Amino acid sequence: MNVGFIGLGNMGRAMAARLLTAGHALRVWNRSSEPARQLAGQGAQVMATAREACDAEVVLSILSDDRVVREVLLGAALPAARAGIVHVNMATISPQLSDELAARLGEAGCGYIAAPVLGRPDVAAAGKLNILAAGAAADLERVQPLLDVIGQRTWRFGERPAQANVAKLAVNFLLAAAIESMGEAAALAGGYGIEPARLFELIGQTLFPGPVYQGYGRVIAESRFEPAGFRARLGLKDVRLALAAAEAVNTPMPVGSWVRDSMLEALSRGEGEKEFGAVLGRAAMRRGGR
Amino acid sequence: MNVGFIGLGNMGRAMAARLLTAGHALRVWNRSSEPARQLAGQGAQVMATAREACDAEVVLSILSDDRVVREVLLGAALPAARAGIVHVNMATISPQLSDELAARLGEAGCGYIAAPVLGRPDVAAAGKLNILAAGAAADLERVQPLLDVIGQRTWRFGERPAQANVAKLAVNFLLAAAIESMGEAAALAGGYGIEPARLFELIGQTLFPGPVYQGYGRVIAESRFEPAGFRARLGLKDVRLALAAAEAVNTPMPVGSWVRDSMLEALSRGEGEKEFGAVLGRAAMRRGGR
Amino acid sequence: MNVGFIGLGNMGRAMAARLLTAGHALRVWNRSSEPARQLAGQGAQVMATAREACDAEVVLSILSDDRVVREVLLGAALPAARAGIVHVNMATISPQLSDELAARLGEAGCGYIAAPVLGRPDVAAAGKLNILAAGAAADLERVQPLLDVIGQRTWRFGERPAQANVAKLAVNFLLAAAIESMGEAAALAGGYGIEPARLFELIGQTLFPGPVYQGYGRVIAESRFEPAGFRARLGLKDVRLALAAAEAVNTPMPVGSWVRDSMLEALSRGEGEKEFGAVLGRAAMRRGGR
Amino acid sequence: MNVGFIGLGNMGRAMAARLLTAGHALRVWNRSSEPARQLAGQGAQVMATAREACDAEVVLSILSDDRVVREVLLGAALPAARAGIVHVNMATISPQLSDELAARLGEAGCGYIAAPVLGRPDVAAAGKLNILAAGAAADLERVQPLLDVIGQRTWRFGERPAQANVAKLAVNFLLAAAIESMGEAAALAGGYGIEPARLFELIGQTLFPGPVYQGYGRVIAESRFEPAGFRARLGLKDVRLALAAAEAVNTPMPVGSWVRDSMLEALSRGEGEKEFGAVLGRAAMRRGGR
Repeated sequence: MNVGFIGLGNMGRAMAARLLTAGHALRVWNRSSEPARQLAGQGAQVMATAREACDAEVVLSILSDDRVVREVLLGAALPAARAGIVHVNMATISPQLSDELAARLGEAGCGYIAAPVLGRPDVAAAGKLNILAAGAAADLERVQPLLDVIGQRTWRFGERPAQANVAKLAVNFLLAAAIESMGEAAALAGGYGIEPARLFELIGQTLFPGPVYQGYGRVIAESRFEPAGFRARLGLKDVRLALAAAEAVNTPMPVGSWVRDSMLEALSRGEGEKEFGAVLGRAAMRRGGR
Repeated sequence: MNVGFIGLGNMGRAMAARLLTAGHALRVWNRSSEPARQLAGQGAQVMATAREACDAEVVLSILSDDRVVREVLLGAALPAARAGIVHVNMATISPQLSDELAARLGEAGCGYIAAPVLGRPDVAAAGKLNILAAGAAADLERVQPLLDVIGQRTWRFGERPAQANVAKLAVNFLLAAAIESMGEAAALAGGYGIEPARLFELIGQTLFPGPVYQGYGRVIAESRFEPAGFRARLGLKDVRLALAAAEAVNTPMPVGSWVRDSMLEALSRGEGEKEFGAVLGRAAMRRGGR
Repeated sequence: MNVGFIGLGNMGRAMAARLLTAGHALRVWNRSSEPARQLAGQGAQVMATAREACDAEVVLSILSDDRVVREVLLGAALPAARAGIVHVNMATISPQLSDELAARLGEAGCGYIAAPVLGRPDVAAAGKLNILAAGAAADLERVQPLLDVIGQRTWRFGERPAQANVAKLAVNFLLAAAIESMGEAAALAGGYGIEPARLFELIGQTLFPGPVYQGYGRVIAESRFEPAGFRARLGLKDVRLALAAAEAVNTPMPVGSWVRDSMLEALSRGEGEKEFGAVLGRAAMRRGGR
Repeated sequence: MNVGFIGLGNMGRAMAARLLTAGHALRVWNRSSEPARQLAGQGAQVMATAREACDAEVVLSILSDDRVVREVLLGAALPAARAGIVHVNMATISPQLSDELAARLGEAGCGYIAAPVLGRPDVAAAGKLNILAAGAAADLERVQPLLDVIGQRTWRFGERPAQANVAKLAVNFLLAAAIESMGEAAALAGGYGIEPARLFELIGQTLFPGPVYQGYGRVIAESRFEPAGFRARLGLKDVRLALAAAEAVNTPMPVGSWVRDSMLEALSRGEGEKEFGAVLGRAAMRRGGR
C-alpha cells in the first residue's frame, strides 16, 4: 500500500520500519531530518513537507501532543489531503482534538481513525503493540492490514474516533492511579519497617501480576528516577488530558485529581524530567524520615 | 501435632478440615456450635470453651475482627494458655492489637505469630492460600508445617508480628484503590459511550492481568451487588484499619481517605451489606444519567 | 474624562451609570443594544462597534469571560486602539489572558490595568465595590479618579496586571472553599439532629461574621437553589480558572480540586443553572436520608 | 450555689475564678495541685480527690480529652455522685463519650449537660465565652446562672448532650478548613508574586472579617510557628474527633479528610508541638522554592 508516515520519534521509527519490512511503500516526514534519513536506508521515500507525505492512500501519524498535531496536521498537512484517503492518528491526544480532526477530514471526503497504542518502542519494534482503534468500520477495515503489521491485536472502541483516545487516557489514568496507590501502600508498610520491595514482591506474584505493578514496583522500591523511560511531566500531561476529557462530560475523577495535585508539587520541586513512576510513587510516600 | 483451632467461619472451617486430613489432632471451638459439629464428623474434638481449645502445642485462630479477638482471645482464652505454646493468629486485625497480643503472650512464655491470609474459602479448601507471616523465627519454624498444609506459600515479613498485619492491610488497601480507580476510569469511558466491560476486557488482557482487575472488572461492569462475596461494610472496615495503622505512624494515604469517604456515602444509602466491589466501583462513577 | 465603556451587563450598567453621574463622557458599546439604549437616556453616546468605543482616553471593559474578552477585545476592538490610551479590564479572567493583553497593548503604546471587583450589582450601583487593581503605577494613577467613582476602595496588587486577576481568583476560591466547608459541617451536625441554620447562626455571630458565612449560610440552610444570584456553572468556571492559574505555577490546591469534582457531579445532575451556594453547599452534605 | 469544679488548666482556672468572684462556693480539684492552691487564695476549697469535689449541687469539669474524662470522671468521680446533682462537662470530647456519660449519670439519677466553649483563656477570664450547651431543658435552666457568669451567651443545641459536642467539633472543623483554604489561596497568590499578607489584608477587611481569617491570616503570613497558642497535634485531634463523629453517622467530610492527611505529614516532619495555624497553613502551600 502507498502509505504516508508522519512523526518519526522512537515509536514512529519502529512502526515505520515494520511497515517497510512488510513491503509497503512509505513517504515519510519528520520535523528533524535525521530519523527520516535512517528510514531512507530501509527504502522509505523522504519528503520535504508533511503535506507531501499525505499524497498516499493511507496516512499514519504519531506526533507528541495536541499542540504538535494541531500545528502539523490541522495547520499544514491535512488541508491538502486528497478526498478518499484515510488518516490514522496514533498519538495520545484529547478526544476534543480527535473530534475536530474527524470533522475536518470528513468535510474533505477523507476517513479518520484514531488508533493510539499501548507499548514502548521495543514492543513496537517487535510488532507486539496493542492498538486501541475507533472510527468508521469501513475505514478501519481498510487500514487493518497496516495495523496488523504494527500490533499484535487491535481493540475496537466504536465508530467515533475520539472513543479510542478516551480509552487510551483511561488506561494511562489507571497506570498513574496504580503507581500512586503502590506508593501509599509502601508508605504504610514502611512505617512498620517493611521494605517496599518485599510488599511489591508479594503483590506482584499474587493479586497484582503484570507489567504495571511488577515493573513500577521495582521503579518505586529502588527510587529509579533515572533513566526516565517516561518523563514525569509527560505522565502529568496524560493525567491532565484524562481529567479534561472527564470534565467535558461532567465526570469527577477524585483519584485523578489527587494524582495531578501530587505531581504538581513534584514538578515544583524540579522533578519534571525524571522517571514518572519514581516521581509519583515516591511523592506518595509522605512521611518524614523516610 | 496437637492443635487448638478457634473460629470456624467459612475460612476457618476450610483450614481446619485440611489440617485434619493431614493427620493433625484438632481441639476446635466456635461461638456457634454447628460448624464445630461438622468438623467433629471429620475427627475434630469439639471443646466447650475457647480456653479448653488452647490446651495444645499450637493454637490457630481466625476470628472476624479486633473486637471479637479482644473478647475471645485476650479476654477469655489466652490468659489460660500454658507456657510454651505458639499462637498463630490468622485474622485481619490492627497492628496495635497484634502488638498487644504479642506482649501478653510473651509475658506468659508463649510465642505469637501473626499470619493473615490472601484468598477466599475455596482457595483455603484447596490449600492454595498465600500466608503473610511475621514473628520470632523460631516460632515460625515450629508452625511452618501447619502453614504448609493450609497455604501454597508463606511470605515472611519480619520478627514483629504486627508487620504481617500491616502487610495484609496494605494489600487490602491496594484492592480497594484498584476498584475505585477502575470505577473512575469506567466513568470517564462511559461519558463517551464506551462500555465499562470493554475497557476492563482491554486492561485485564494487557497491562492489568490477574484476579483483581479481571474479577472486580466484571463485578463493576455488571453491577453485581449480589451475591456479596465480600460485604461493603467489611471492605470499609479494612480501609479504616489501614488508615488507622498509617495514622499511628503519621502517614497520610489520600487515596485511602477518599475511598473511605466514598464508602461512607454508600453506607448512608444503605449499601453496607452488598458486594464491596460493586458498591465502591459504582460509587466511583459519579455522573448523572448513568 | 472621555471614557470608552465596553460590556453593559448588570455590573457594567451600574458602573457606567455612576461614571455618567460623576460627569464623565461615555462612549458605550454592548453586544445587545438594549442596555446601551438605557444608558443613552442618561447621556451616554452609544457606539455601533466596540472599536469605536475605544476612541477615548481610557477604555473600561467588563465582559463575561476569557472567550468573550478574546473575541471582543483582542479580536476586534484593541487592535485599533490609539497609542496612549489606558485600558482597564474589570472582568474575572485568567492571568494568562491578562498577560497577553498587557503585552499586546504595550506593543501598541497603550497602558493596561487589570481591575476585577468584589461586589454584586447593587454594590456597584452604590459605588461601594472593592477594586483589585494591578498594572504600571503611572497608568493606575491616571485611572484612579474613575475607580474612585466606582468603588469604595482600590486594593493594589503589583505592577503586573495579572496579579489582580490572581488575587480575584484566590478570593473566589476562598468563597467556594467556605461554602464546601459549611456544607460538610452542616452534614456532620445534621447527622446528630442539629439544624444547619442553627449551626450557621452560631458561627455567623461568633467566629465567622461577614457576608460569606452569613449569606451563604442562609442559602445552604434553606436550600435556596433559586434565584440564582450566581449560577453554579459560573462558580465552577471561577474554580477552574483558579486551578489553571495555580497549575501554571505548579501549585496544587487540593480543596480546590475537590470543589471542582463535587461541582462536576452536581452539573451532571443538571444543577448548572441553579444558585452556586446552594448547589455546592448541599452537594457537600453527602448522606442518605437527608 | 455549691459547685464542684474539676480541671484547672488555663481555661478552668479562669472560669473558676469568675465563679468565686460571683459568690459561688467552689470545691475544686486538679490533677496537679499548684493551680488549686492559687484558687484557694481566692476562696476555693481544695479537695484531695475528684470524687470529693463532686459533693455539690452542680459539678463543672473541663478536662483535656476523652482519655482523661474517661479516667477521671467515668472511672473515679462520677460513680460516687449523689442523685440529683447536675454535671456540666465543658471539654471538647466525642459525642460518643458524651452519650455514655449521659447514660451513666441518668442511671444514677443525675443530670448531664455538655457545654463546650468557644474562646481562649483571656476570653474566659473576661466572662465573654460563647457556650454551646445541650441536655435536658430543666437541667440547663438550673445551671444557666453559672453559665451566665462564665460566658456572654449560651447557645442551646438540643436535648441530647452529645449535640453540643458535635456543634463544637463542627466549629473546630470549620476553623481548620478555613486555615487550609487560606494556605491554598496564599500558595496560588504567591506563585504570582503576591504576598500572603496582602491577600489576607484584602479578605479580612472585605468578605471574611472576624477573628479566624484575620488572626490566622497573620499567623500564616508571618509563619508564626511559635508561640503555640493551639498546638498542631491538638488541632489534628479535633479534626479526628470531627471525622470520627461524622463516620459514626456515615457522613463523609472530604475537606476534613484532606486536612487530616496534610496534618499527618506535618507531624511526621516533627511539627506537632508548633502552632496549629502556622503548621496547617504553611503545609497547604505546596510549592517548591517558597
